Amino acid sequence: MPEFNAPLRDMRFVLHEVFQGPALWARLPALAERVDADTADAILEEAAKITGQLIAPLNRSGDEQGVSFDAGQVRTPEGFAQAWQTYREGGWVGLAGNPEHGGLGMPKMLAVQFEEMLYAANCSFSLYSALSAGTCLALDAHASDELKAAYLPALYSGQWAGTMCLTEPHAGTDLGIIRTKAEPHADGSYRISGTKIFITGGEQDLTENIIHLVLAKLPDAPAGPKGISLFLVPKFLVNADGTLGERNPAHCGSLEHKMGIKASATCVMNFDGATGYLIGEPNRGLAAMFTMMNYERLSIGIQGIGCAEASYQNAARYAQDRLQSRAASGPQAREKIADPIIVHADVRRMLLTMRTLTEGGRAFATYVGQQLDIAKYAEAPEEREAAQRQVALLTPVAKAFFTDNGLESCVLGQQVFGGHGYIREWGQEQLVRDVRIAQIYEGTNGIQALDLLGRKVVADGGKALAEFTVQVRSFCEGRTPYRDPLLTAVAELESLSQWLCEQAVKDPNAIGAASVEYLQVFGYVAYAYMWARMEAVASEHLEQDRAFYEAKRASAAFFFARLLPRTLSLQASIRAGSTALFGLAAEQF
Amino acid sequence: MPEFNAPLRDMRFVLHEVFQGPALWARLPALAERVDADTADAILEEAAKITGQLIAPLNRSGDEQGVSFDAGQVRTPEGFAQAWQTYREGGWVGLAGNPEHGGLGMPKMLAVQFEEMLYAANCSFSLYSALSAGTCLALDAHASDELKAAYLPALYSGQWAGTMCLTEPHAGTDLGIIRTKAEPHADGSYRISGTKIFITGGEQDLTENIIHLVLAKLPDAPAGPKGISLFLVPKFLVNADGTLGERNPAHCGSLEHKMGIKASATCVMNFDGATGYLIGEPNRGLAAMFTMMNYERLSIGIQGIGCAEASYQNAARYAQDRLQSRAASGPQAREKIADPIIVHADVRRMLLTMRTLTEGGRAFATYVGQQLDIAKYAEAPEEREAAQRQVALLTPVAKAFFTDNGLESCVLGQQVFGGHGYIREWGQEQLVRDVRIAQIYEGTNGIQALDLLGRKVVADGGKALAEFTVQVRSFCEGRTPYRDPLLTAVAELESLSQWLCEQAVKDPNAIGAASVEYLQVFGYVAYAYMWARMEAVASEHLEQDRAFYEAKRASAAFFFARLLPRTLSLQASIRAGSTALFGLAAEQF
Repeated sequence: MPEFNAPLRDMRFVLHEVFQGPALWARLPALAERVDADTADAILEEAAKITGQLIAPLNRSGDEQGVSFDAGQVRTPEGFAQAWQTYREGGWVGLAGNPEHGGLGMPKMLAVQFEEMLYAANCSFSLYSALSAGTCLALDAHASDELKAAYLPALYSGQWAGTMCLTEPHAGTDLGIIRTKAEPHADGSYRISGTKIFITGGEQDLTENIIHLVLAKLPDAPAGPKGISLFLVPKFLVNADGTLGERNPAHCGSLEHKMGIKASATCVMNFDGATGYLIGEPNRGLAAMFTMMNYERLSIGIQGIGCAEASYQNAARYAQDRLQSRAASGPQAREKIADPIIVHADVRRMLLTMRTLTEGGRAFATYVGQQLDIAKYAEAPEEREAAQRQVALLTPVAKAFFTDNGLESCVLGQQVFGGHGYIREWGQEQLVRDVRIAQIYEGTNGIQALDLLGRKVVADGGKALAEFTVQVRSFCEGRTPYRDPLLTAVAELESLSQWLCEQAVKDPNAIGAASVEYLQVFGYVAYAYMWARMEAVASEHLEQDRAFYEAKRASAAFFFARLLPRTLSLQASIRAGSTALFGLAAEQF
Repeated sequence: MPEFNAPLRDMRFVLHEVFQGPALWARLPALAERVDADTADAILEEAAKITGQLIAPLNRSGDEQGVSFDAGQVRTPEGFAQAWQTYREGGWVGLAGNPEHGGLGMPKMLAVQFEEMLYAANCSFSLYSALSAGTCLALDAHASDELKAAYLPALYSGQWAGTMCLTEPHAGTDLGIIRTKAEPHADGSYRISGTKIFITGGEQDLTENIIHLVLAKLPDAPAGPKGISLFLVPKFLVNADGTLGERNPAHCGSLEHKMGIKASATCVMNFDGATGYLIGEPNRGLAAMFTMMNYERLSIGIQGIGCAEASYQNAARYAQDRLQSRAASGPQAREKIADPIIVHADVRRMLLTMRTLTEGGRAFATYVGQQLDIAKYAEAPEEREAAQRQVALLTPVAKAFFTDNGLESCVLGQQVFGGHGYIREWGQEQLVRDVRIAQIYEGTNGIQALDLLGRKVVADGGKALAEFTVQVRSFCEGRTPYRDPLLTAVAELESLSQWLCEQAVKDPNAIGAASVEYLQVFGYVAYAYMWARMEAVASEHLEQDRAFYEAKRASAAFFFARLLPRTLSLQASIRAGSTALFGLAAEQF
């Protein structure tokens, strides 16, 4: 039975040492009063307890039991409801939420590390929380004060939960063609009618109420994405005194049967003239929803890291214990029938690939969290805006690259176990099934890549990218053994981006033909920057904790030697252009 | 609900046009009398019917129901037993088997294409057949005439089935440490005692008897792999008249709960003094078992191709139908709410990746089948031996590269479906779960890679490799637009191999550090050779079936432009050497 132990030492390394969280918080007035290094450590330790001891033990049984559906009611697996009570009472849903309405106002840098633990412990459980936290963010940013006051406190406290209702049977990526309708009502509310699918937590038995954020079209709305509005649709209407009123006709019609995240209720939701309240401006709903969507994208990226960490922990333990064959350099454990498989070069290749992708991802997630904190809390508007541009640039990279690496790491972790990785009892196959969805939902990784290359690089004229590469170059002026490969990698990314900007002018398919591989190049370059930064800190503090810091240096060496070269093939493939993608007519496939 | 239609036109293209199967068979006396182009086509058409109409429809229900176990009895899902009857009566188990004992003696080139259909239709069902065919091959090659006469006819006819019993709880890759014992009995038989795990079809309700091939140690056996013998252990002892006798104490203790292939019974088998018969020489059992193992390795490789083909067919159909967003070059289907997603460059990238890896694999499997036919049937011993060397070299590539590509193609096929790929009804998630095992069983892909680089290239001094590259160079003397990239790729493979031979002398870890990526380089170069050959044939016959041959040429162009460059990164990573893999002590993981 797999166990999960939050990698606290590694998290503190990234949070405190590499990105100097406490120093940042001290200079941001809103955060300075709320959090310092000790608070952060105390929170991480509590988080490690609740995820390791309360939530992780429900992961396997949750997968076995799954959610069930009967007469409109969804039942989550045994133990989920009790765990949710403890979880919500700890205030975890509102960890980074607005304190004016009951959130704890903690930095995002810290919250991303908590989210990693949560996903590593139990993806299905995590989703109920992640959707609520995102709902709060969108309401806090776009809803009226009245709606905020009425809904945020119970959402932050986890008494209620939130959902994100975008997809319809015929409309996933292409939200411009949704059909759900919103008809204005005399009292200022709306009647929402339509069917939404793939709604995580659309119905469940964890919370007293469920708050759906629903995209719908007003009667006079223009066609396409500019005719979409956002509505708050509660499962139970909320009375003026905060008590629950009438049941709103927003019902779960059925549950999907899925490859994984089986304890997460993925619902078909039928809105039959349900009462809803407009959030933000009419026809500006997509932008408002994107406040939530961007939160979820980073969060789902972190699902990739969490699953990868869980997979790595299991695989590393197994490789240290499992005896099979002798080391190529001669027997290492002569007293045993064979050597532990960690002596074998290929097992180490798999473990180091998992480890360096996962730690690179953790560092990058924390870095994006840092930019989010600056964007939210910095005093100078130009500092906030610059950070916001980095967030916009890096979020699609985080979502897609973390989750692609999540699948790779879970598949590798399964491979380390040989045949035992394919059977259920070791937990590795569940991780593969659970992580796979992360490349698909909240915008497929293909869509993330189009967003990155099309909107955030080409349409932006490369400005945000230049701000990123300036930072990397500036880091290279300090002491690092990776100056040359890092500068080369950055120069290649810039040159590739420039070339693609030129191609895009001539060839409408240039972006789509390159985008997925471009995002991967970006990811590897970003991780190279992360590893160079981690190596620099490790080298500086080497004497204080030699085994720990030497492992960081050795991991950085592995990343640069064996993984960064992956950009070579990606670049070559991209530079081959779009022509080869259009040699077949649609009917020839 | 997914459908499977065997790609007969593509199969004939490879079998008849690219590799000129009929011309080969005509010059091999044993085959000349049995098979020509028409026979082969008739067999493929029958195979398409039985796989598409009888076996594929049981794939989804087989996954839903799985196998069940009660009081020692295994029950296969509904419909499996009836389908097996029809299947066995068609003679499919013995399609390439020895006609002296009831096989049909068809060429392996043809059999590999049949196997692809079978795996594409239903992996779980296929395995019962694949294990039987492999059992026959080992018996035919190594058993006494008496055993052959007693067991082969009922195995070939599918009245009985075979299994391969190697793995024990503590011994998977490392068979040298198995504990199962064989004690000689006065009548010349042996008493087999021990526990074997992961035994596919160890117990089932399809056949009257089950013939286990079991690795065990004789009392005086030397330690390690040179002390292993092979035994035939029937479920029911067979009387002199061929009727079934006493139940042998060879019982299934339990079934494994797995990620996929849920309709395949993966058994723990307990041998409690079961009667067994020695196959071949004492202590030479591993070599005898490898006759079966090598068969299974190619077969399992083909599982990768079959799953990839099924995934491609589903994904291509979906991409032609699903409407979502507009083409980057402007609307293509103005009368519809959106364009079919096949207009999008990234969807095409996914489909073409799947398609060219799958067709490259099909060609390579047929090529390996051709070498097997030559090795078995050619008159000149030197021709047989040369072909056998190619088989030995290429089998690990086939097993590992086909199945790695199988996972990639199934994951891509799932991705084309977006959220719909993650739910069960479209069948794509089952393909991912079913194909995943193929990278693990019959020797993990890591073990295949060690076999390729360690034994088949380095220990061989690169001789078999040179025989392969000579063929590629000789092809390049003909008309091909891919002369330059193919010659470059081959030269790089040779130079890499040479470098690794040199490294291996100095560094015991050189092989293990490079092997997996080396196998992938080999695979891409081999597929480049396959695509260049397919392109040459397509160009030659262009006018005869323009749409078909043009699609082949366009696919070749895609492979060279967008996939062959993957070797660049692999080479760079390999050439970084083994050092970075050994920077961490075992306890630092």
